[in-house]
Amino acid sequence: MSLDPPQLNGASTPKQRLDASKLKFIQSTVLHPVPEPGSPELWAQNVHTDHMLTCRWTAEKGWDVPEIKPFADFSISPLASCIHYATQCFEGMKAYRGFDNRVRLFRPDRNAKRLVMSAKRVSLPEFDDAELVELIKALVRTDAKRWLAEPGSFRYVRPALIGTGRQLGVQIPREAVLFIVMVCWPDFSTETPPGVVPRSDLRLLTSRNDTIRAWPGGFGYAKVGANYGPSFASHCEAQESGYDQILWLFGEDGQVTEAGASNFFAIVKDERTSKLQLLTAPLNDKLILDGVTRRSVLELVESRLADELEVKETKFTISDLEKAWKDGRLVEAFVSGTAFFIKDVSTIRVGDRNLDLVQKRDGTGKFGPRIKGWLKDIMFGVEEHKWGVAV
Amino acid sequence: MSLDPPQLNGASTPKQRLDASKLKFIQSTVLHPVPEPGSPELWAQNVHTDHMLTCRWTAEKGWDVPEIKPFADFSISPLASCIHYATQCFEGMKAYRGFDNRVRLFRPDRNAKRLVMSAKRVSLPEFDDAELVELIKALVRTDAKRWLAEPGSFRYVRPALIGTGRQLGVQIPREAVLFIVMVCWPDFSTETPPGVVPRSDLRLLTSRNDTIRAWPGGFGYAKVGANYGPSFASHCEAQESGYDQILWLFGEDGQVTEAGASNFFAIVKDERTSKLQLLTAPLNDKLILDGVTRRSVLELVESRLADELEVKETKFTISDLEKAWKDGRLVEAFVSGTAFFIKDVSTIRVGDRNLDLVQKRDGTGKFGPRIKGWLKDIMFGVEEHKWGVAV
Repeated sequence: MSLDPPQLNGASTPKQRLDASKLKFIQSTVLHPVPEPGSPELWAQNVHTDHMLTCRWTAEKGWDVPEIKPFADFSISPLASCIHYATQCFEGMKAYRGFDNRVRLFRPDRNAKRLVMSAKRVSLPEFDDAELVELIKALVRTDAKRWLAEPGSFRYVRPALIGTGRQLGVQIPREAVLFIVMVCWPDFSTETPPGVVPRSDLRLLTSRNDTIRAWPGGFGYAKVGANYGPSFASHCEAQESGYDQILWLFGEDGQVTEAGASNFFAIVKDERTSKLQLLTAPLNDKLILDGVTRRSVLELVESRLADELEVKETKFTISDLEKAWKDGRLVEAFVSGTAFFIKDVSTIRVGDRNLDLVQKRDGTGKFGPRIKGWLKDIMFGVEEHKWGVAV
Repeated sequence: MSLDPPQLNGASTPKQRLDASKLKFIQSTVLHPVPEPGSPELWAQNVHTDHMLTCRWTAEKGWDVPEIKPFADFSISPLASCIHYATQCFEGMKAYRGFDNRVRLFRPDRNAKRLVMSAKRVSLPEFDDAELVELIKALVRTDAKRWLAEPGSFRYVRPALIGTGRQLGVQIPREAVLFIVMVCWPDFSTETPPGVVPRSDLRLLTSRNDTIRAWPGGFGYAKVGANYGPSFASHCEAQESGYDQILWLFGEDGQVTEAGASNFFAIVKDERTSKLQLLTAPLNDKLILDGVTRRSVLELVESRLADELEVKETKFTISDLEKAWKDGRLVEAFVSGTAFFIKDVSTIRVGDRNLDLVQKRDGTGKFGPRIKGWLKDIMFGVEEHKWGVAV
């Protein structure tokens, strides 16, 4: 149904590549008020900084000049691809003000590479991931002084790519916009929203048999909008039942995949050897997101805890967990992700039973909090590490 | 992560329902040029009429007053749910100028009910489907005089609902916009785009094992954006290989589900009885869209062709089709949908073999064209029928 088959697609004109060196800058004349640390506003997750970065792409010309400009609404056609056909993908990352007063990103190369991959999955244009990293740094530099002033604080950074072509046909978008915004974000790993009784535990509800987040051959591995909206109903159902997140199971055997929009880890004592194993779902069947925090957890465990904890990226089922719990071998569980960071799991609801982890483990979150501490040290510059990239 | 647990969600204030009787009207002062019948512009699928209908919803107040106003771009926040999390659903329908000069919709109640169902699947607000039908009629009435003047012509009507709340948290949108636009549309069932060699056949390429459109427990049955963007790559791959649409298979056994964004039908001679059967995938596993044209085809066959053709809404596999084809029992195949209407399938590519239907069937599309003719007669008022609803 495409009007321009690829072979006629203006292959003779060279297309502009995404080029951070061409960045234009338009200073905002309006400076928005910055919320106080820990203020209730943070929980709205929509207080943005003064500027945003945008870059337009067209099938004819490629990437336009990127611009940092005052934060403003988009003008989007009612016929735009992104609001009908979910031609959209995004990244979630944070910018950290270190205790040494330097501003850092955490492994931004990983996020940039993943956005290229996600874009491809929903037929959005390709770009050089290293250029995106430069653009992210440029936006963070622009607004860090006012918006990220406090050592030990962070903001959330959201790069996204949307198909803006005006075309109701079922076809690849011929126009797109890459944009980056920075917003205030609460600390989910240690705080609770205003009006909610403070508690530090995380309760997971296993998904129902009739609701599946992702499937082999689908797009569960990509950070595309299509994975999110359809999962909100389950997420809400969990909260209405007094749980925080869904633990997504897959298949007849109930393979454990992800928790909410985070990766899931369980620490289990091996039945025969009694050695501790860190279990997490594998990437090879493309069901789960290749989380940057997930990958970092695994790498830290391999480099710093190899004697205590064996990494097992492997299929495991909710029955495996239940059995380990019954035997007293499920010693710890936690989730990881940029939005949530790392948070210990206190309970997993399976059918009509709670697998309560506080009562079963020896010591409270022996490994999760340690790994979290290491990551924090890297993010806030306490430990100089190649993962902490100064902007 | 929601700030307002359902029990605190302002349940004391009654929410406004969607109410077509409150419709406001702002006449456009700019009248756009109307393309000539059959003009190449139609293939861009983005020439819109002079007006659009919008209605805003908020979690606090419910539905605002619907408005018909000049067609214009939306102002959408870079933090809006719909461009990050695919909180979006839509409908596809057509408005027809009958040979009796009356303007009709085809079974609009079906589309409106389906939009309510799709909205629920992506946590968008509910509304009364009968009110939506009235709103659709109102927009079509507004622009039909200039834009749908020619007896025997049609325009495409696109109602859609998008989550516009500014919120990057993984949560149900607290604001949404329902909108309806009308655009010019080519006749896919009889015409070819400019620059493409005219041909009337439709060639399907079976999907690869590593790419599926939908899965049980997913959302393949709902008309949500999340089903479309991720399928564009396969669609494009089909076109680059010289095919028109993907025939989506599911499961190890290769169950035949949908073709492109249309439903798929095969007419097969039963192996034992030699009776002709109309095969199409069932709705009960929620893999495929409950197409309005699909449903109408089945109902027409049951009421008008029962002696010749037995309706079988049942699971069948690509191997079943291949075997029938080898035995000379695959006599016809066609796709149905609003965008494509009804179109005979000429070839199905399976592995390295073409199941060529022109050579195998006796007579060219004995049933597809007949059913299409009946539907056309209803749409254009040649036959008075309850499915043809005058606006």
